[in-house]
Amino acid sequence: MTATIETTDRTRVRRLPKRGVYDREAIYAILDEALICHVGFVVDGAPVVIPTIHWRDGDQLYFHGSSASRMLRNLRDGVDACVTVTLLDGLVLARSAFHHSMNYRSAVIFGKARLVEDREEALRALDALVEHVVPGRSREIRGPNEIELKATMVLAIPIEEASAKVRTGGPIDDEEDYAMPVWAGVLPMKLTTQEPVADTGVTAEVPEYVRQYKR
Amino acid sequence: MTATIETTDRTRVRRLPKRGVYDREAIYAILDEALICHVGFVVDGAPVVIPTIHWRDGDQLYFHGSSASRMLRNLRDGVDACVTVTLLDGLVLARSAFHHSMNYRSAVIFGKARLVEDREEALRALDALVEHVVPGRSREIRGPNEIELKATMVLAIPIEEASAKVRTGGPIDDEEDYAMPVWAGVLPMKLTTQEPVADTGVTAEVPEYVRQYKR
Repeated sequence: MTATIETTDRTRVRRLPKRGVYDREAIYAILDEALICHVGFVVDGAPVVIPTIHWRDGDQLYFHGSSASRMLRNLRDGVDACVTVTLLDGLVLARSAFHHSMNYRSAVIFGKARLVEDREEALRALDALVEHVVPGRSREIRGPNEIELKATMVLAIPIEEASAKVRTGGPIDDEEDYAMPVWAGVLPMKLTTQEPVADTGVTAEVPEYVRQYKR
Repeated sequence: MTATIETTDRTRVRRLPKRGVYDREAIYAILDEALICHVGFVVDGAPVVIPTIHWRDGDQLYFHGSSASRMLRNLRDGVDACVTVTLLDGLVLARSAFHHSMNYRSAVIFGKARLVEDREEALRALDALVEHVVPGRSREIRGPNEIELKATMVLAIPIEEASAKVRTGGPIDDEEDYAMPVWAGVLPMKLTTQEPVADTGVTAEVPEYVRQYKR
């Protein structure tokens, strides 16, 4: 496994190439922070893009769902997929409309999905899913039983053809616009948690990993 | 324009059909709150999913970018597109791994993109873009000049074939798991702003519409 992922024609960032990131750890960090991805696949020649939960274990990108899901049934047949993950970091407010932008980190993975048929890999992956979304929770809850395992399809895409694109920093304005009296800068944004809402009948304390939850 | 959008084979929500939403205003509200979308299109038979900024004006969904953008050049040729927008509202922590979920609101629009060639429509759309991202800002900044207009491609997709999917509320556990002593409930999540960061040399006060910014 190399530290830098070799680019292909479709992963090389062409628009604003200096935003391209091909470092494996940097791509992994984006995948690991994000809670949802958007999976693209082709049905009858037309694109379909569906939001879903992804998670990573080593160099495998996993996602899952009901065995009855149309998306998963499509993907398990080895069709091409494109998984895109985007983290919005802020609004970039420039002096001109044209130079307005957003700060973001996005990752794109191309590949063919593989149905995880090995029971051990599926169980390990489903455990990693809970730990990806809420670290610390998997040891407290009931794991999947046989019926639930059968009802769940787990798919994996190897993270081989992938790249990221990142924008950071303030606005870059045209020279003659800097004299404008308007406020310019970055309004940082972040996905944050609000007060936890306990389910009816819960007597347990809110666990530390929920109270301190951070992406 | 009808209040309810007629479903097609690909917009009807099949998995968990009670989460399907076909009300036009509800779909618009999701599009208007979201800051980014994921656009899917097909290149050489394979799916490509790219994050970008979208905005709405009436029943038109717009997006834009550099005239040199590969995505936009692909789309302007009238190929099929799928635009998906997802708002994450919270983590749903159940007593069993299987019943963990997320609260979300997502919208999917299928259609063919049209290149906005009319100068007036393009200018109006670019103004609406700034107002979509930061309401109140368009009157303070320099609008696009002729060179910038030429360098910008604006595309529109009519919001005709569209649906939304929404999950709200707490976990739904299996009857026998409710006795477990584990905490269960919802951890609400929200995209929030942090302290604004002024660009170098800015002397203007942080405007009200930035200080009070909310999605």
